[in-house]
Amino acid sequence: MNTIISGIAGIAGIAGRIRKKRSIGLPPGTPVFTGEKTPESANASIMVIDFNDSGFTENAAPSIEECIPGPNFDMTRWIMVSGLGDVEKIQSAGKAFNLHPLITEDILDMHQTPKIDIYSDIIFLVLKSLCVSPDGGLATEQLSIINGKNYVITFQEKKSPVFDNIINRIKTNSGRLRREKADYLLYVLVDCIVDNYFEVTDRLDETLEEMEDVLTSSRASLAQLRRIHTLRHAVTTLRKSVRPLVHIVNELRHEELPNSQTNLTIYFKDLYDHIFQVVETIETHRDMITVLLDLYLSSINNQINKIMQFLTLIGTIFLPLTFITSLYGMNFEYMPELKWHYGYFYALGLMVVTAVCMALYFKLKKWI
Amino acid sequence: MNTIISGIAGIAGIAGRIRKKRSIGLPPGTPVFTGEKTPESANASIMVIDFNDSGFTENAAPSIEECIPGPNFDMTRWIMVSGLGDVEKIQSAGKAFNLHPLITEDILDMHQTPKIDIYSDIIFLVLKSLCVSPDGGLATEQLSIINGKNYVITFQEKKSPVFDNIINRIKTNSGRLRREKADYLLYVLVDCIVDNYFEVTDRLDETLEEMEDVLTSSRASLAQLRRIHTLRHAVTTLRKSVRPLVHIVNELRHEELPNSQTNLTIYFKDLYDHIFQVVETIETHRDMITVLLDLYLSSINNQINKIMQFLTLIGTIFLPLTFITSLYGMNFEYMPELKWHYGYFYALGLMVVTAVCMALYFKLKKWI
Amino acid sequence: MNTIISGIAGIAGIAGRIRKKRSIGLPPGTPVFTGEKTPESANASIMVIDFNDSGFTENAAPSIEECIPGPNFDMTRWIMVSGLGDVEKIQSAGKAFNLHPLITEDILDMHQTPKIDIYSDIIFLVLKSLCVSPDGGLATEQLSIINGKNYVITFQEKKSPVFDNIINRIKTNSGRLRREKADYLLYVLVDCIVDNYFEVTDRLDETLEEMEDVLTSSRASLAQLRRIHTLRHAVTTLRKSVRPLVHIVNELRHEELPNSQTNLTIYFKDLYDHIFQVVETIETHRDMITVLLDLYLSSINNQINKIMQFLTLIGTIFLPLTFITSLYGMNFEYMPELKWHYGYFYALGLMVVTAVCMALYFKLKKWI
Amino acid sequence: MNTIISGIAGIAGIAGRIRKKRSIGLPPGTPVFTGEKTPESANASIMVIDFNDSGFTENAAPSIEECIPGPNFDMTRWIMVSGLGDVEKIQSAGKAFNLHPLITEDILDMHQTPKIDIYSDIIFLVLKSLCVSPDGGLATEQLSIINGKNYVITFQEKKSPVFDNIINRIKTNSGRLRREKADYLLYVLVDCIVDNYFEVTDRLDETLEEMEDVLTSSRASLAQLRRIHTLRHAVTTLRKSVRPLVHIVNELRHEELPNSQTNLTIYFKDLYDHIFQVVETIETHRDMITVLLDLYLSSINNQINKIMQFLTLIGTIFLPLTFITSLYGMNFEYMPELKWHYGYFYALGLMVVTAVCMALYFKLKKWI
Amino acid sequence: MNTIISGIAGIAGIAGRIRKKRSIGLPPGTPVFTGEKTPESANASIMVIDFNDSGFTENAAPSIEECIPGPNFDMTRWIMVSGLGDVEKIQSAGKAFNLHPLITEDILDMHQTPKIDIYSDIIFLVLKSLCVSPDGGLATEQLSIINGKNYVITFQEKKSPVFDNIINRIKTNSGRLRREKADYLLYVLVDCIVDNYFEVTDRLDETLEEMEDVLTSSRASLAQLRRIHTLRHAVTTLRKSVRPLVHIVNELRHEELPNSQTNLTIYFKDLYDHIFQVVETIETHRDMITVLLDLYLSSINNQINKIMQFLTLIGTIFLPLTFITSLYGMNFEYMPELKWHYGYFYALGLMVVTAVCMALYFKLKKWI
Repeated sequence: MNTIISGIAGIAGIAGRIRKKRSIGLPPGTPVFTGEKTPESANASIMVIDFNDSGFTENAAPSIEECIPGPNFDMTRWIMVSGLGDVEKIQSAGKAFNLHPLITEDILDMHQTPKIDIYSDIIFLVLKSLCVSPDGGLATEQLSIINGKNYVITFQEKKSPVFDNIINRIKTNSGRLRREKADYLLYVLVDCIVDNYFEVTDRLDETLEEMEDVLTSSRASLAQLRRIHTLRHAVTTLRKSVRPLVHIVNELRHEELPNSQTNLTIYFKDLYDHIFQVVETIETHRDMITVLLDLYLSSINNQINKIMQFLTLIGTIFLPLTFITSLYGMNFEYMPELKWHYGYFYALGLMVVTAVCMALYFKLKKWI
Repeated sequence: MNTIISGIAGIAGIAGRIRKKRSIGLPPGTPVFTGEKTPESANASIMVIDFNDSGFTENAAPSIEECIPGPNFDMTRWIMVSGLGDVEKIQSAGKAFNLHPLITEDILDMHQTPKIDIYSDIIFLVLKSLCVSPDGGLATEQLSIINGKNYVITFQEKKSPVFDNIINRIKTNSGRLRREKADYLLYVLVDCIVDNYFEVTDRLDETLEEMEDVLTSSRASLAQLRRIHTLRHAVTTLRKSVRPLVHIVNELRHEELPNSQTNLTIYFKDLYDHIFQVVETIETHRDMITVLLDLYLSSINNQINKIMQFLTLIGTIFLPLTFITSLYGMNFEYMPELKWHYGYFYALGLMVVTAVCMALYFKLKKWI
Repeated sequence: MNTIISGIAGIAGIAGRIRKKRSIGLPPGTPVFTGEKTPESANASIMVIDFNDSGFTENAAPSIEECIPGPNFDMTRWIMVSGLGDVEKIQSAGKAFNLHPLITEDILDMHQTPKIDIYSDIIFLVLKSLCVSPDGGLATEQLSIINGKNYVITFQEKKSPVFDNIINRIKTNSGRLRREKADYLLYVLVDCIVDNYFEVTDRLDETLEEMEDVLTSSRASLAQLRRIHTLRHAVTTLRKSVRPLVHIVNELRHEELPNSQTNLTIYFKDLYDHIFQVVETIETHRDMITVLLDLYLSSINNQINKIMQFLTLIGTIFLPLTFITSLYGMNFEYMPELKWHYGYFYALGLMVVTAVCMALYFKLKKWI
Repeated sequence: MNTIISGIAGIAGIAGRIRKKRSIGLPPGTPVFTGEKTPESANASIMVIDFNDSGFTENAAPSIEECIPGPNFDMTRWIMVSGLGDVEKIQSAGKAFNLHPLITEDILDMHQTPKIDIYSDIIFLVLKSLCVSPDGGLATEQLSIINGKNYVITFQEKKSPVFDNIINRIKTNSGRLRREKADYLLYVLVDCIVDNYFEVTDRLDETLEEMEDVLTSSRASLAQLRRIHTLRHAVTTLRKSVRPLVHIVNELRHEELPNSQTNLTIYFKDLYDHIFQVVETIETHRDMITVLLDLYLSSINNQINKIMQFLTLIGTIFLPLTFITSLYGMNFEYMPELKWHYGYFYALGLMVVTAVCMALYFKLKKWI
Repeated sequence: MNTIISGIAGIAGIAGRIRKKRSIGLPPGTPVFTGEKTPESANASIMVIDFNDSGFTENAAPSIEECIPGPNFDMTRWIMVSGLGDVEKIQSAGKAFNLHPLITEDILDMHQTPKIDIYSDIIFLVLKSLCVSPDGGLATEQLSIINGKNYVITFQEKKSPVFDNIINRIKTNSGRLRREKADYLLYVLVDCIVDNYFEVTDRLDETLEEMEDVLTSSRASLAQLRRIHTLRHAVTTLRKSVRPLVHIVNELRHEELPNSQTNLTIYFKDLYDHIFQVVETIETHRDMITVLLDLYLSSINNQINKIMQFLTLIGTIFLPLTFITSLYGMNFEYMPELKWHYGYFYALGLMVVTAVCMALYFKLKKWI
């Protein structure tokens, strides 16, 4: 999933991909990796960050099982797993941490819609991160988060910089993060993903307004129709990723969470307000796209109508000219004008005057 | 109902068929078979599969009455009834298992919308299975499921491979199925049907996107209009089959079930998430069809406009040509050009130059 | 209201008629008959059917007052009143059965929307029956039903065969009806009316699909536009009659009913499912009508465009022909072709070749 | 507000007027009269009707303060205030009856949306009456109603016949009104206003159907577009006046009312049903207006298309005629037809035959 | 944000600006000023107004910290902070008043959607004020309000006259304000902002109706399309600012407020009614804009159609004229008319008669 595509157009491609579910007919809870099998995703790389108010350590770990915090462990542990291609590894990790088989299945299913499951001992979250990658492109990524007593595990399809500035915050001890426990880390992770949505909606905003300007200036082409449909796909995908979050954050806010150590109600309410803002923006985007399509159609119509009108005007100017010529092409024996010495030039003059008058009239009427 | 039709187009036909209800005026609870009377559906074939953790047996049974599990029966029994044309047989089975007459009526009514009835001793479910048949076509089928203390009865209009891989799982003891009781079997059956919906939505997805590509490439024909309407019917039918499931699985999840032996809450929540995903996809499909219709209309319009514009351009090019010819067809006595030796060729040349200039101008303006 | 009109078109007329409310300014509870005053509706005809498990009697009664079941009456009494034009009769009946004046007013108001009122001793229902009359036409009728301890009273504007097969069931003792009490009779009456809705929706289904076929085959006429609007009226009326039933049956299902003697929950749930099915079908019909209107418009457009295109093509073929003729109508002194002996035939041949080439080109492009 | 305008068109004007709120920046509760200042509204005229089962008295009162019922007053008092231009009078009345300043403000604000406020001792209602005035025109009027222990006060902008038939009912002792208390009078007043809405919807119904007939008969003009927009305004205004009533009557029905002396639940349920019916009709009207607009557009399009088609057909008939004339205008030396004695008449005949054939062909194709 | 733009068009610009959220990646609660950095907003100016029933004082304060009311302070204090560019100042004020870091962040974030947070000791509100500035233009401004025990703090991006008439009311002791406590001041502030919305909706109303008049008079231009889109943006922005208020005032009305000293339920209900009225008006505006767009499109279409029809009519009038001229341009040897002495004038006369007849016919048919 973790593809890096340049520009907004990249988002559109996702819609087509949020499809293929786990192989039909397998028993429920059978773990199958449904992402792209690349060398990057094939091997799970595991990073463990332990921190508390006074310090932090950062280590790579060979297997997830070894990361289980011992009984005397008094820091907060963040286990970052990147690369989910090695199904057995994830499965054995699931067993080590005593996870329900359905959780393991969901972690490995890259087409899972965002969800929250609150168990008696852990919280399980699936989120979609839409973040801007260093080259300015857009990357979509599925993130699974497990929040236990004093640890948080994050699963990513492959390595990505989504959480880089959170790691930095731990290292530089900025903000409250180091002073708080695992539940606050969970909040910070979700908050980070929601923050990134603002970037995406900002970009869509810009693109949509730009399109509106272009289309009200009455220039439209088939390429723009395709672009509008690409944007429509993008907004649909964004909506599919964000809307379940309203429900998810609501649960985090109102449910009694298993490992709650700090009162995070205020924080989750704040988060809820942010998501609500994103959702409202997306609804505006949907309206905009309908408007853009209407604008496109009327613009196209307008163009063709303008051309047809122009051509018809030309035709109308020629009508009296051709009439005059065929008038003097008649073979009557007695037609005085034909005998005039300057008859021909008089006829030519008549035509020029007629044409100019008509052209002026059309100009006056603003038809040309 | 169990018709095998090739391709997506097949789905469309169903809409017309989910009509005819039980004969009006009959007392409620009167069993009437409202499906197609074929040799296949005329005779009920009964298969009984008994299984537990240690083993399984598979037998054909002459009548459903004989399948009532005895008091000492300690396995899980799955009674598969295929062929509902023999109304008396089903009715007497209903009496043997102590079913309400309305249940028997619903089992035999092939136009029943999906529903759940939770009685004090049994759960009664009606579902629509839309599964892919071996030849790649699509088959629609109504499935009634009754879940009692230690048995599950499934009723199908005629034999079909819907549940084949569940039978295989029992035989090969894969997954948890053999270790669990009848309530888990019920879950597995529903899960299997929901899984199959993903196949159908995947196909619709592909077809719809393909259509969108074709239509934004601006080629449209009446055949495509018909295809869009066929797809619209397909989506309507799919929606009618799937939407009641939201309610059904919600009941399974939140209600106290009569024969519950295992805690299946997590499983039913998972199932609920899946159905929700299908429903959301169907809503996207509905939007897509509106978009496709708009695209079709604008594409058709565009085509005709393009042709008209082309023809008008041709007409406009001929305007000055015909003007010149009729100019020199005038009968003035004194017209110097007429006397010129090469006057005719000068006139021809003038026309060629004019025509070429106009054609170039139109080309430049991108009107041709 | 009880008009017998042939075909579906008949339904449309109702919309216009569900208007005129009771005379404004009268005190609430003033009984006014708002139906059509015909000889048939002027006199109330009263039929009384008493039945229980062992037998039944059927008598005409001179007045409703005499039908009050005595204290020792141990059967179930069904009082059928047809003809509501005689306001005093209905009013005195209302007093005899101790009905609230608002009930009497509602019984006599033929424009009452369907409703349910549950009093401490009786249930009062107003329903709209849309049933198929013997000549194949459609009849709309308002039915008021009162369900007391051991009796049911039905009020119809005039005699109609709506309940004929229920009477037959009582006479032939088919189904459970004779074994049950007045509350079951109420259920059977409502069920009968809902059953009849299926007939109406089936017919609408057929008509709508037929229209769709006609319109996608691209033949459209003003008559079809009128037909679509007639269907739109029909669906609106049907919807107005059926939608309140969702609420009504829900009340019957969940409220504690005053004269409940049997547990009818299962039956009312079944009824609820049926009404829900009808409502869903009507929603589909509404969508269909929007689609039909769009189809009609695009079809009409298409036709005119096709004609215009054809005419323009003809015009375009004549363009070079007329050019050639006027070319050789020029009066230059030196035009070699004019001197040729077969010049005229060469010109004719040139024109034929040009015309044929153009026609072939247009044929090739599929423009003709 | 109390303007008398003729015909339905009059309603449309209101939309524009339900605007100007109380002067911005004034402290809340500052009484400002926002209606039209006319001689009629400038002076408050006060009528007091006292009634009970045995009799009634009707008097004019100089000020509202004097109308406070004494402690021994055992009848029901209805104080009718018409004319709200004298702000001090209303304000001092408000103080005498101990009304909250916000109530006085709302009574004087002619742009208040309908509302209900239930205080511990009184009920305060604001309603919009849309009643048919004697000359057949339509009058809009804001009515404020206060219901105290044994009195009801109604405030009208100026004298109007809205409640005339209720006064008659008191005088003639018809219906239950004289036997009941102040709470029943409140119900009767609201019922009277709702009854009047039926008249307005009936008229709109007629007008809308008439428009539909006209537009499906394919005659459309700009005047009709304006009429449709006028109707759209009318429906919007009606909707704004009626929709808050759903909530208001619901409160009257379910809340514990301060001065309740009779059980009016049945009456308020009946009222609720009526309002619901009006609201449903208004929704149908809204749909109708969308349909009318679509019909208008397609009708206009059709007309122009018909004309263009007719003109193009004429042009097409002239094509071969002009071709023939210019054919025989060619100057070839050898053109046998030119030498024929009747050549000219043969050519004329050829043209007539061609024109007639084409006209017949177009007639046959139903293009003309 | 506080930009002063002339006319309604100014509102449209806001939509584009309610975007940029706080810098992504910063820890939650980090205060960042996201408004425009102007000299005016750079320095916080602090005004303190203390008032009670007997008097008031108005002072400028150097820092917010010094404004904390002492324990013996028995008046109501209103601290007005204008200019939020100095982040440290605001932050230290937040600490002095013991505000949660998220509140400080929200106060400084000029793109915050309106919200309410009710803490145990204070109420925090963010509102958008859309007020009319002295030069008749429109100014948008974010207002944050904090209501503590005996004080209210308001934060504005820069100085603005929004609350000027409230200050006047304090000074002149008009209304109840001086007699009430801080909670009533809060209500008055919110009421003042809501009042101002009425001005904006009034203006939009006027503009929209004016547009409708113009467009039904069938004159449309591209400038109008742009104006419609500008209005659409304006309505979207207005809606985004107002809709959250429904929820906010509902909370104020139903929640138990921390510093409640007076029973303001009636006032907040009144406020709720006002906001509801604004929201309803905005919905009407949205419908209007759809209508305007449709009107625009049909108007544009109409114009072009009218022109094309006119031109085609001219072309049709020339058809028979040109036919006659080319008829008498034929070269038959025997054409009697050609020999007539007045043949030419007869032909001219024939043409004039034909043209006049056709013109009259078209006039009669109302095509010209």
